Amino acid sequence: MGPEHRGRSRLAKVQDAEVVAGLLHDFNVEFDTPTPGVEVLTSRLRWLLAGEQTFAIIAGSPAVAVALATLRPNVWYRGPVTLLDELYVVPDLRGGGIGSEIIDLLWAVARERSVSLIEIGIDEGDLDARRFYERHGFAATEPGSDERALYYVRELTD
Amino acid sequence: MGPEHRGRSRLAKVQDAEVVAGLLHDFNVEFDTPTPGVEVLTSRLRWLLAGEQTFAIIAGSPAVAVALATLRPNVWYRGPVTLLDELYVVPDLRGGGIGSEIIDLLWAVARERSVSLIEIGIDEGDLDARRFYERHGFAATEPGSDERALYYVRELTD
Repeated sequence: MGPEHRGRSRLAKVQDAEVVAGLLHDFNVEFDTPTPGVEVLTSRLRWLLAGEQTFAIIAGSPAVAVALATLRPNVWYRGPVTLLDELYVVPDLRGGGIGSEIIDLLWAVARERSVSLIEIGIDEGDLDARRFYERHGFAATEPGSDERALYYVRELTD
Repeated sequence: MGPEHRGRSRLAKVQDAEVVAGLLHDFNVEFDTPTPGVEVLTSRLRWLLAGEQTFAIIAGSPAVAVALATLRPNVWYRGPVTLLDELYVVPDLRGGGIGSEIIDLLWAVARERSVSLIEIGIDEGDLDARRFYERHGFAATEPGSDERALYYVRELTD
């Protein structure tokens, strides 16, 4: 039995692109973050989910939660590194264990793909999220370090 | 003139794998971080530098500085996202502008590859590094957010 058949969560297929896009769009609308809209996201996800570098997990039917993750190589590890880019559960169903179920499946998928490290960027003030991920074995300090790392970004504008 | 011909910095080729590996190894030895050794790193880098997801920049001949970056897709952006995984300048030559030159070339390479966003994780207490990247246009808050993000990790052990 592959990880895609466990519980209510499963790996998204290319034909789930619109569902994944809808949830990611709702996520950003809820948190006042810019979104290019469902149509653009769907078209990008059709391409991304067909490739090897991106995977998504959805939960429920109709889907009520989504996780989006990317893989990349890292010179310090034998296997790839996975970044959990997004994890969203619709507001009414939060606190019911769906997020934990998705993390368990993420974990299983990562193992299956020989992933060495899972990363996630979390807003410093989002204590609920920080507690959630700490409960699931994530730490704000890298192995061998006692210092927290901050996530810096610079956008390239056209 | 491509970015690989500017100044003393250039994009590393597959045959530079051992030089890149040597500098990355020295980096980790200097900062008491585990390293699998030059031989393992060289073999990984031969494979990584031949692919599309990783690139390295080296400066000087013999090389005295290195940057290692990875690319991955991101659903929120048209182009890929680049993570600057490592930037190392040998101790004697720090503060002489080599780091800035490498960042300029990273920037040029990113533009050439239609990158939308450059990311980097920086230790919270490393004020020199934070100032350096802030001078180069990086910010600890994402566009549209006023909150810092922390970088969380979980290793998967075999």
